[in-house]
Amino acid sequence: MSDDVRRVIRSPRGTELSCQGWQQEAAYRMLHNNLDPEVAEHPDKLVVYGGTGKAARDWPSFDAIARTLQGLKQDETLLVQSGRPVGVMRTHEWAPRVLLANSNLVGDWATWEEFRRLEALGLTMYGQMTAGSWIYIGTQGILQGTYETFAAVAAKRFGGSLAGTITLTAGLGGMGGAQPLAVTMNDGVAICVDCDPSRISRRIEHRYLDVQASSLDEALRLAVEARDARRPLSIGLLGNAADVLPRLLAMDAPIDVVTDQTSAHDPLSYLPLGTAFEDMRDEAAKDPAGFTQRARESMARHVEAMVGFMDRGAEAFDYGNSIRGEAKLAGYTRAFDFPGFVPAYIRPLFCEGRGPFRWAALSGDPRDIAATDRAILDLFPENESLARWIRLAGERVAFQGLPARICWLGYGERDKAGVRFNEMVASGELRAPIVIGRDHLDCGSVASPYRETEAMLDGSDAIADWPLLNAMVNVASGASWVSIHHGGGVGIGRSIHAGQVAVADGTELAARKLERVLTNDPGMGVIRHVDAGYDRAAEVAAERGVPIPMADGTPR
Amino acid sequence: MSDDVRRVIRSPRGTELSCQGWQQEAAYRMLHNNLDPEVAEHPDKLVVYGGTGKAARDWPSFDAIARTLQGLKQDETLLVQSGRPVGVMRTHEWAPRVLLANSNLVGDWATWEEFRRLEALGLTMYGQMTAGSWIYIGTQGILQGTYETFAAVAAKRFGGSLAGTITLTAGLGGMGGAQPLAVTMNDGVAICVDCDPSRISRRIEHRYLDVQASSLDEALRLAVEARDARRPLSIGLLGNAADVLPRLLAMDAPIDVVTDQTSAHDPLSYLPLGTAFEDMRDEAAKDPAGFTQRARESMARHVEAMVGFMDRGAEAFDYGNSIRGEAKLAGYTRAFDFPGFVPAYIRPLFCEGRGPFRWAALSGDPRDIAATDRAILDLFPENESLARWIRLAGERVAFQGLPARICWLGYGERDKAGVRFNEMVASGELRAPIVIGRDHLDCGSVASPYRETEAMLDGSDAIADWPLLNAMVNVASGASWVSIHHGGGVGIGRSIHAGQVAVADGTELAARKLERVLTNDPGMGVIRHVDAGYDRAAEVAAERGVPIPMADGTPR
Ligand SMILES: NC(=O)c1ccc[n+]([C@@H]2O[C@H](COP(=O)([O-])OP(=O)(O)OC[C@H]3O[C@@H](n4cnc5c(N)ncnc54)[C@H](O)[C@@H]3O)[C@@H](O)[C@H]2O)c1
Ligand SMILES: NC(=O)c1ccc[n+]([C@@H]2O[C@H](COP(=O)([O-])OP(=O)(O)OC[C@H]3O[C@@H](n4cnc5c(N)ncnc54)[C@H](O)[C@@H]3O)[C@@H](O)[C@H]2O)c1
Repeated sequence: MSDDVRRVIRSPRGTELSCQGWQQEAAYRMLHNNLDPEVAEHPDKLVVYGGTGKAARDWPSFDAIARTLQGLKQDETLLVQSGRPVGVMRTHEWAPRVLLANSNLVGDWATWEEFRRLEALGLTMYGQMTAGSWIYIGTQGILQGTYETFAAVAAKRFGGSLAGTITLTAGLGGMGGAQPLAVTMNDGVAICVDCDPSRISRRIEHRYLDVQASSLDEALRLAVEARDARRPLSIGLLGNAADVLPRLLAMDAPIDVVTDQTSAHDPLSYLPLGTAFEDMRDEAAKDPAGFTQRARESMARHVEAMVGFMDRGAEAFDYGNSIRGEAKLAGYTRAFDFPGFVPAYIRPLFCEGRGPFRWAALSGDPRDIAATDRAILDLFPENESLARWIRLAGERVAFQGLPARICWLGYGERDKAGVRFNEMVASGELRAPIVIGRDHLDCGSVASPYRETEAMLDGSDAIADWPLLNAMVNVASGASWVSIHHGGGVGIGRSIHAGQVAVADGTELAARKLERVLTNDPGMGVIRHVDAGYDRAAEVAAERGVPIPMADGTPR
Repeated sequence: MSDDVRRVIRSPRGTELSCQGWQQEAAYRMLHNNLDPEVAEHPDKLVVYGGTGKAARDWPSFDAIARTLQGLKQDETLLVQSGRPVGVMRTHEWAPRVLLANSNLVGDWATWEEFRRLEALGLTMYGQMTAGSWIYIGTQGILQGTYETFAAVAAKRFGGSLAGTITLTAGLGGMGGAQPLAVTMNDGVAICVDCDPSRISRRIEHRYLDVQASSLDEALRLAVEARDARRPLSIGLLGNAADVLPRLLAMDAPIDVVTDQTSAHDPLSYLPLGTAFEDMRDEAAKDPAGFTQRARESMARHVEAMVGFMDRGAEAFDYGNSIRGEAKLAGYTRAFDFPGFVPAYIRPLFCEGRGPFRWAALSGDPRDIAATDRAILDLFPENESLARWIRLAGERVAFQGLPARICWLGYGERDKAGVRFNEMVASGELRAPIVIGRDHLDCGSVASPYRETEAMLDGSDAIADWPLLNAMVNVASGASWVSIHHGGGVGIGRSIHAGQVAVADGTELAARKLERVLTNDPGMGVIRHVDAGYDRAAEVAAERGVPIPMADGTPR
């Protein structure tokens, strides 16, 4: 079966069960959905997104997981070790139906080199964040986060809108492909560089990107025209960012915001200068060490140009792909002169337990998402930016795989939404259950010193107890599946993070589980930031009643 | 309060509760018990054992944990981040009452240097294995592990008994001091070298060591006499192992087993040749680099002698102190000619889900342990080595803190024992509930490439998914507290491991929880070794019905 590369995987729809209950069914459908050709970047290789983020170790493992889920009872739990099903344990009805651990290595061995060696031996897989935890919903997931980030950039520097500004970025992959639409949703102009022509045409096809420029000069001309007309426009440009950015800098291009989402976290996936895109895979395979070195040197030139734009007044930020770290490894000393996006824009949201709350309709019916959209607008009428997002998303976002929605909600909000969805399933207002999960990029589920926990107030960036407590608390609260991952986003050795998914199947038990999971999970974000000394988090904890044993501020 | 260094902590005894229920009470008592002066090495510094393994971050944290446990409800869960209580979450009655994560760091930051820096900032603590997870029971734990290892040596080479053999070892410290008694409990003769006279007299005082020889010749004569009479005897010998072992080899001493537990893992604690014991600390402080070099050279001579005995037919093994690695650093090429103790003796036990099962009597009454000892003998009448241990332990082991017992049990055995103890609590045969836990050095709860997972058949030594799955499955099965630790035993960057403790309080619910936890926890050991390709584990899984989705041996 492993050679059956043309297999097409798609989630079942409707109310007929393949499994013994909706919790198992939800895992079964979301595993399949992660590999839907509309959702996954390379479904034939089980790769969902983010470089080589996979949903299962290999096809035999995929089949064994699916088969085991079909037979799994209401008090059993399937264990998945880096995409391979390794056991079934008898637990109880409040316990998760699946527990997953992906890509975890002991610290001294936590390098890409060792990881790749073990992966080649068939002993592990790269789970990224929502790939190996079966809750990727296509580019909409990152679209919302990217929308939030650019909205925060606009609020900080440009009076609340990107109208009349030009953003320069690269990378139109699974995550980076959200950038052009996020910028235009904020009324700005974006130039987006990618070296892979298929990525550009795919983003145009999905209406995330407006046009492709045939040359650097044309891209700049289109951008300036649109900017001057205060007209949103996104422009794709084929090229190597390590070449294009320095040239734009030399041309003194009027860039207001500069960032990047190439796959810099994995040097074997970043196209070095001097290599043709077509030869990239071969060269990387032939000489991984040499390729890595050349990729890093190119990243250094790339980052140097970003710093150049910053020096000329642009808002520059690292968008979580480790490009600063890699550039520094190549000897570029100013690599960390611009900040990561989290301390710059996202942390204030984390202090309120805010983060990417997402859900999918297991019915497969887009009307179920439309109904939940209305429910969200009803529940939080005072939140304008949320309302604007829900409206624009309804208009602009094409579903990939099962219909799904995402929006950022905080402590005290997520549980309300979850319980409401569950009522809607119970009443028949929705056609089938809803699964509710999130990215691992969340307020209290990740330790990642180059991204989510960069520059914590108390210096606790590298403390990894928090994601582990997050995973355990989700297991203890009634989530349907829970995962602990290593190396997502920023790469092996650089992050530890946890995920949870809970199922609103309309039962009373599900309501109680959802209430707890969707309170405790964002609650981890609040207590993590209280502990680190953020005043806003302490306020939120006090106002909303998050119990903290040492909230009296006992000194350390 | 932090300066109140004379505070004496001791667990409450009896049946009067300080907390809202026995699960919370058990955590409360075991936290206190870990710091009982009879149990802890440096209770004033909250240090329990193993270097700086602590029970709580600091005294204010200790007090806040104790206070929070007192008020904690039956459906609440306390979160402890490296010894500091950081939150309380509403969960449910099957959920653990406490979740702990200790010393965890993101891979690239997982070094002693960074750890010490963060510890100095008050952001973390070293949890070792059972220190930060509140289930240390004093030196009995070490004694049992050492007994088990020598029993396995006996089984492998000498027909099940060490009678008529001589074991040569060095190091009579905190761990190594268990060696003489473990050998004599297996009916063997031991010569134990240490350079510190106080360690020898202390072991004699505690009845772990029988006699001290005044010379090498006397030691050998006593050993040979006892061996020929097949009489157990342990003999202390003052000296430097790097000097004594080569001399014994030159004398052609009839050594059957050779190992070592000097503090070789830290070259500044190993006495080099040419340095008097009295001058050791000063010289190490004055010139650490030079001292390290000399210590390593001495270790090379020490290991060379061990290899010499092996060449003449002795059973030689490394007992987890890195002496092979250090000798190799000094240029001795044959250092790794003998194996570590885990692959040699312990792994076959791990394949059966065997590991250190321990329990303590919350009543504080030694008669409760005597009753459980009888129950164990009743339950497993066919296991001779277990029966011998239980009998000898009853005679020879002095309790420290709450009365406690440890023995190695496997898959299908631990749950039986747990459920039986619970019945005994219910019937009133025991005076109060029993807590049941284990060390993290266990079959399926640790990733530690220099010790527990050294030289795995499939090369999966550094894969850390297993301890994380272990922790989550224990949370999902009804354990009373669960912990995930980093760096225990072999140090920061070198291990990730998990612990669980469950409480037999005599209720029906506890019986169901114990059945699941004590099946699933050793079950992790079985599936971990099945997955790594061990035939014995596959046999055990098949015989005892451990469900494994890919047990058909689908190739990777
Ligand atoms: N900001 C976030 O929240 C967040 C979240 C997850 C991941 N990330 C990181 O963002 C990065 C992008 O993720 P992705 O899923 O889109 O990855 P991806 O692999 O799907 O896409 C990367 C894109 O970069 C292009 N690329 C590679 N080298 C290039 C070069 N030299 N010049 C121009 N284009 C080049 C590739 O052609 C590809 O289209 C990753 O490093 C990921 O870890 C960020
Ligand atoms: N096997 C296991 O499961 C296991 C578990 C934990 C630790 N260890 C390792 O075992 C070793 C011993 O641990 P410990 O807690 O007993 O350490 P310790 O520091 O308490 O004792 C070490 C002893 O070695 C003696 N010593 C040092 N150099 C000597 C020399 N040249 N000749 C003779 N004696 C010498 C010291 O005087 C001391 O008594 C450590 O390296 C530890 O890491 C093994």
